[in-house]
Amino acid sequence: MNAFAKIPKPQPRLTLVGAGPGDPELITLKAIRALATADVVLYDALANPALLEYAPQSAIKTFVGKRGGKKYLPQQKINELIVGEAFRHGHVVRLKGGDPFVFGRGHEELAFAEDFGLETEVIPGISSSVAVPALQKIPLTKRGINESFWVITGTTKNHEISKDMVLAAQSSATIIILMGMRKLREITAIFSQYGKAQTPVAIIQNGSTPEEKLGFGQVENIADVAEAQGLAAPAVIVIGEVVGLASNAPDTLQNMVQQQIKTTQYVSR
Amino acid sequence: MNAFAKIPKPQPRLTLVGAGPGDPELITLKAIRALATADVVLYDALANPALLEYAPQSAIKTFVGKRGGKKYLPQQKINELIVGEAFRHGHVVRLKGGDPFVFGRGHEELAFAEDFGLETEVIPGISSSVAVPALQKIPLTKRGINESFWVITGTTKNHEISKDMVLAAQSSATIIILMGMRKLREITAIFSQYGKAQTPVAIIQNGSTPEEKLGFGQVENIADVAEAQGLAAPAVIVIGEVVGLASNAPDTLQNMVQQQIKTTQYVSR
Repeated sequence: MNAFAKIPKPQPRLTLVGAGPGDPELITLKAIRALATADVVLYDALANPALLEYAPQSAIKTFVGKRGGKKYLPQQKINELIVGEAFRHGHVVRLKGGDPFVFGRGHEELAFAEDFGLETEVIPGISSSVAVPALQKIPLTKRGINESFWVITGTTKNHEISKDMVLAAQSSATIIILMGMRKLREITAIFSQYGKAQTPVAIIQNGSTPEEKLGFGQVENIADVAEAQGLAAPAVIVIGEVVGLASNAPDTLQNMVQQQIKTTQYVSR
Repeated sequence: MNAFAKIPKPQPRLTLVGAGPGDPELITLKAIRALATADVVLYDALANPALLEYAPQSAIKTFVGKRGGKKYLPQQKINELIVGEAFRHGHVVRLKGGDPFVFGRGHEELAFAEDFGLETEVIPGISSSVAVPALQKIPLTKRGINESFWVITGTTKNHEISKDMVLAAQSSATIIILMGMRKLREITAIFSQYGKAQTPVAIIQNGSTPEEKLGFGQVENIADVAEAQGLAAPAVIVIGEVVGLASNAPDTLQNMVQQQIKTTQYVSR
């Protein structure tokens, strides 16, 4: 390998890099610079393959993802591969979709590498939880409507719905659910139970890519909308009045949010 | 202006661009490309001034921020400036710190511009809420510990603590508070009230910049830690067991989180 030609004894190190939500231009300069010095790139399926071109031609590029019907590499094997490749070749860049620390298992990889004495660095990426709604011009927070946003996974370790979902349904936060399409009916049932049947919802599939698909509805009917429009994973689900602020939201939702802004202004006077 | 030389009648348009948390390398390619075609850049104080160099020399660059002791430009004036400059010169890039839709008033600027018929686009940025903890190797979520993160502003429109803070204190989410340093004692009192006096907390001031400062503690003593270390705004406050996963967290916090991971594994068997 070239890495050996250049550096007699490679310095084993790991850089965990966030590749962004899909659009290859939504990667940072810092990520590109890390890729440019990679001896090995271990990438998953969420990262756009075009990004691999930032790595040297001589770098080893290995797919370790678990999507798109390809073979699943257990997490422990990925951890071991990182350490093995770093000791063999030097700088391993672990390229992960979105941000490496948002529902990725980035920290497990980092901790494992540090146990073997590897130098480590984290380069944050644009998380789809924030960016995919923004690209639809849905602000996660809006003065007069709410003061927070809450990002929750729909698929927990034990395949149950997170207990936080019940609190989420009672909060005024904008709720962003990742990996929740399979539990959509169960999730909306919880929100309906807490008086949120009318709350606007958007589902954005393949956000930031040319395959982007979008559905709007309310808690009580969004599961039907998703079924009718064939919306499926990977998708971001956004629940909250702010959905009505999207310029292409249906009039019903837009009117709801304008009404709420007026009410809040009146109350706060 | 050059814009007039090239284009007889400028096409008025607005691109809202997220500049990232401070490190000028944490900007996206897409943002750089938008800046390169700007006729006018309206920037606030959180954006690193080095980023202005991506705009053409001929572009008008105007500071419209409200930090660092400089004069405050009311939001309505910023909105009007965007529209005026777009009709006069063409492409206005509004460069905002972090992500333009996370507690920025980006959507107000967007809606105002659209009311005047401007073409608009949003380019998401790296939000400090996600990136600043990541740079400290604090994952916002960790299997076996929690399944969500909740980003809340400490400073609401009415200068009160968000009602969501009371639900936040009861959830298992990692809580990330922006603009909360002035309310730190009030916030920690709420968490203590809900049995979270021992929960690990990190405060990261000027995250991602050379001026970064870091404090660790628990809910019950973090306000004293902040005072002793002179930690102040702008800072990100992270409350949750995941804080103990930071490699440089004090042993007490690291042990707490390891203990919790063990307990969870035992329970889920």
